[in-house]
Amino acid sequence: MTSGLSFLVAARQCEIGELEHLALTSELVSVIGRLIHGLQKERGMSNVYLASRGSRFGGQRLAQIGDCTALEQHVRVRFAALDTDAHRARNGARLFSRIAVVLHALDGLPALRQRVTTQALSPEASTAAFVRLVAGLLAVVFEAADSATDPAISRALVALFNFMQGKEFAGQERALGAGVFASGHADAGLQPHWQHLIESQQRCFEVFSDFSDASVRAAWIDSQPAEARATLERLRRLGSVAGLNGPLDAELSQTWYDCCTDRIDAMQSVEAFLAEQLRTLCRQRIEQARAELRSQQATLQALAREAGAADAAEAPAPITPHLERSVLGMVQEQSRRLQSMGDELETVRAALNERKVIERAKGLLMASRKLSEADAYAMLRQTAMSQNRKLVDVAESVLAMSDYLGA
Amino acid sequence: MTSGLSFLVAARQCEIGELEHLALTSELVSVIGRLIHGLQKERGMSNVYLASRGSRFGGQRLAQIGDCTALEQHVRVRFAALDTDAHRARNGARLFSRIAVVLHALDGLPALRQRVTTQALSPEASTAAFVRLVAGLLAVVFEAADSATDPAISRALVALFNFMQGKEFAGQERALGAGVFASGHADAGLQPHWQHLIESQQRCFEVFSDFSDASVRAAWIDSQPAEARATLERLRRLGSVAGLNGPLDAELSQTWYDCCTDRIDAMQSVEAFLAEQLRTLCRQRIEQARAELRSQQATLQALAREAGAADAAEAPAPITPHLERSVLGMVQEQSRRLQSMGDELETVRAALNERKVIERAKGLLMASRKLSEADAYAMLRQTAMSQNRKLVDVAESVLAMSDYLGA
Repeated sequence: MTSGLSFLVAARQCEIGELEHLALTSELVSVIGRLIHGLQKERGMSNVYLASRGSRFGGQRLAQIGDCTALEQHVRVRFAALDTDAHRARNGARLFSRIAVVLHALDGLPALRQRVTTQALSPEASTAAFVRLVAGLLAVVFEAADSATDPAISRALVALFNFMQGKEFAGQERALGAGVFASGHADAGLQPHWQHLIESQQRCFEVFSDFSDASVRAAWIDSQPAEARATLERLRRLGSVAGLNGPLDAELSQTWYDCCTDRIDAMQSVEAFLAEQLRTLCRQRIEQARAELRSQQATLQALAREAGAADAAEAPAPITPHLERSVLGMVQEQSRRLQSMGDELETVRAALNERKVIERAKGLLMASRKLSEADAYAMLRQTAMSQNRKLVDVAESVLAMSDYLGA
Repeated sequence: MTSGLSFLVAARQCEIGELEHLALTSELVSVIGRLIHGLQKERGMSNVYLASRGSRFGGQRLAQIGDCTALEQHVRVRFAALDTDAHRARNGARLFSRIAVVLHALDGLPALRQRVTTQALSPEASTAAFVRLVAGLLAVVFEAADSATDPAISRALVALFNFMQGKEFAGQERALGAGVFASGHADAGLQPHWQHLIESQQRCFEVFSDFSDASVRAAWIDSQPAEARATLERLRRLGSVAGLNGPLDAELSQTWYDCCTDRIDAMQSVEAFLAEQLRTLCRQRIEQARAELRSQQATLQALAREAGAADAAEAPAPITPHLERSVLGMVQEQSRRLQSMGDELETVRAALNERKVIERAKGLLMASRKLSEADAYAMLRQTAMSQNRKLVDVAESVLAMSDYLGA
């Protein structure tokens, strides 16, 4: 066996190691998705509980806290399982750092709940705390997607991350709309933020669709019946433009909440479908890579037998022309395959990079112009529309001009 | 100690692990640089030996083979050292696969040399075999640069890779020019390739300069005295345009060879300077990260003592407000630092991605239009000039239009 071949095997083993790490990460992502869903529900209940001065959702909220605590334990177990596997991680330092942020926020959850129970918090402050916690959990999912080295798994993780992010925007829209309808009048000041949440959902679900296969897209479409979409759009119109001209029917508050909740619960089932598909994909890719390693090792053994005479000699060299061609073929094939996987991965990761660029441009505008997130996003979008350019291109220009913005 | 803090430490340890891996890789890169320099010399000597039908460079070539064999052993030892460290590698599979290709080529080196000795090869075939081997070694360096997770080290590796690649183009130019001057007349058919080699050097040294600090740039400028540059440019002109009109002075062959060799040897000293700087940088970054880990651990221990009462209780929660703020500060600071390192890394890696995009576009044109590498590059460059666009943007358009090219 020539010395290059041991590296051929090492490369394959490295690939399997990366896939096994991805399988663990994918399990983590799916458990995080369930925890986020639970926290989104708890956030909504806490909001109503506080807004109603403790008269509504008291019991349901306690039950929901129980569910969330159980889900949190699952997530913590998964975190601990990752820890033991540290050195396999592609961007381990970033992932672990995100996890440290999340664990710190989870450690503070009992105190937060205590303050909700004793009504020591405003509904807005409670919602904001939950939004931050969910954002931290989503950041872990983002790092997981960013760390994937297999194009197919990376695609699935990008789809899942964008779906989860879109679902979170839907949850924030539910809370915002519930406040508007409960107050009995549409607030013009809230409109840009509401619009931002609607557009952000759209953007996330577009990326999700781009990175999903037909079966997932079909499940997504089935989960959003036309009737429900029509109701949602009508309520959005009533709560925004239409509601500016007169008082809103207080009954609409419950209608809005139910409509949004049905929609979000339906999203949860699509998310579970996506997570299951990801799990299957990881299993298949690992089995496939292991089978390829076995077949590679078998070929190498056959080659070694053929080269028996050469192996007996001290010098590494003279191998037969047939052997030479087989080895060269294997080495070249593997190199080409990894190259094309790398190219494909770049394409998938471009979607993640776009998000990073837009987030950074938004952050820069928020800091330099003292804008809210929604206003910074609206400014980017406005420029993109008026210049007929892609949002990410405008964001890149903003970053390139950062010296002029005096951040 | 709250549970998030163990991940804070894990993130830092992960970073140190990555830095240690980078230090190993950097050693490998520097040893590969020395082997490439040796092979470039051997390639030149083999070329003259074959072109002179064995009458010139016979003895020098054998001495050079001895040097190369010793350098090859160093590289093999470094490869073996990497192997044991497999799981730390960021893109291990790709790196190992490149190494497999290189080792296979190195295993074939004794047979290649045998055929040169017995003059069983044309000078062109011998040079082409050495060019392929050097390209394989440079591909290992490229993967090493692509795998760096520390922005400062990544910058140094990008600079070093581009410098090595530029030096290799200079070596190829020496061989091409030597052939032209030895033949006594300029060949119009060789002009595009010559031009390609000159421009490729320029491009590489520009990227190298962009990613180097002032001390390296000064060393580079000092290594190329104006006198030598003037001689080189005059010879280039004589060998190309001027030489098309009449016979070339045969004496110029030696002048050309010496001029190029002085230039390349001077490059080698700059490369050694770069490699030494990279080594120092790795050592400093590791020491720095270790010191930060120690200070982090000390703070955590102090915090743990402060929270002694809380630790004694079963529940993870009530920590003092002061402790709470310290922990949050550490977690947030680390997260921000990694974020900004990631952003910086994206910027550095953009230079590598540009190269990938241009290489892929070139490959696509070569396959779909049946062009040589030089012609494919000339076509991209021509389009960039006539459309006043960056080369990488044209390359991206070519890739985006791949369906239309019928590859």
